[in-house]
Amino acid sequence: MMTDQAPTLTIYGDSISGNCLKVKFVADRLGIPYDWIETSVLQQRTRTAEFLALNPAGQVPVVKLADGRVLSQSNAIMLYLADGTKIIPTDDFARAQMYQWLFWEQYSHETAIAVLRFRTVYLKIPVEQMEPSLRPRCIAALELMDSHLAQRHYFVDEMLSLADIALVAYTRFAPEAGLVLPPRVAQWVHRVEDDLKLEHLG
Amino acid sequence: MMTDQAPTLTIYGDSISGNCLKVKFVADRLGIPYDWIETSVLQQRTRTAEFLALNPAGQVPVVKLADGRVLSQSNAIMLYLADGTKIIPTDDFARAQMYQWLFWEQYSHETAIAVLRFRTVYLKIPVEQMEPSLRPRCIAALELMDSHLAQRHYFVDEMLSLADIALVAYTRFAPEAGLVLPPRVAQWVHRVEDDLKLEHLG
Repeated sequence: MMTDQAPTLTIYGDSISGNCLKVKFVADRLGIPYDWIETSVLQQRTRTAEFLALNPAGQVPVVKLADGRVLSQSNAIMLYLADGTKIIPTDDFARAQMYQWLFWEQYSHETAIAVLRFRTVYLKIPVEQMEPSLRPRCIAALELMDSHLAQRHYFVDEMLSLADIALVAYTRFAPEAGLVLPPRVAQWVHRVEDDLKLEHLG
Repeated sequence: MMTDQAPTLTIYGDSISGNCLKVKFVADRLGIPYDWIETSVLQQRTRTAEFLALNPAGQVPVVKLADGRVLSQSNAIMLYLADGTKIIPTDDFARAQMYQWLFWEQYSHETAIAVLRFRTVYLKIPVEQMEPSLRPRCIAALELMDSHLAQRHYFVDEMLSLADIALVAYTRFAPEAGLVLPPRVAQWVHRVEDDLKLEHLG
């Protein structure tokens, strides 16, 4: 990112990981300068002693602040970077709804769609060798999103929030795993991609 | 709960679920009156049309506010109820660390320990029929916690926070699944149980 400010933030991330891209999307949206340290999961760069000293959980993304303090978990990092900005609702209940979608994303969406995509695209595991419940769980997650979007343009409070950024990260990759985005989800992905100045993947 | 205030909060929860108990622990800690509607997962009470209208994800806990608004996801509900109270750190970075543990809990801890316990205790599935990685993932989660507690009494900022409440909910049930709590984790469980006025299970 070109900026006059010197980076004070280091992002350790894997460019193929939606979880890592979430952090990039938020930093770019808010104009926060950063250094990106490419850290490949497939090449086991998250398993080195050096990386495990940063994050004992052995997961990307991780951010290091200018003073050396370290934070992990994509949605926690987003909440930290975006604190007090327009992509977090100020209303208490709307903010709670945003938290609800952030936790749902990590518990029910990422664990289905990101896993199916990683196994399909990067591990090249044949579909018949995957657990039978994986694809149905992906479809159920997308249908739940489609239903929620029936009367809304964004997930919470009719504004772009961290809920949309968290959910779009892997949803826009879902077609790579052979999943078909329901119509309202596809429209919402384009909307959020436009807001974040991302290319349309679908 | 005995209180002079009329309940304004309805909690739909299953008493055997750590996720549901988290919400009870926070409400009790903060003196928030509530009605508890027992909603059994095993008896499929989360699959009725009435319940799915409350939460299309079909999961407990769910809370309904006095004005009828509904919120799901245990950690999101805790964040809503505890907003502005002493169990959420006021320092930005400490709060971010709390978020980090909340997301780690849902992604790496609950998905191991709660699942092993549910399959062992409630579904009575023999250990040899479970996925081989499940128990090692539980042990890794407990070891990561033990390591973090080497120089701390609480997970964040040397104070009881939502991080401790989220993590204690299923950690104190782990021995039911035949897991042995590492020493510092066992001491921390007792500490948090005392703080929350809970009985010592271990």
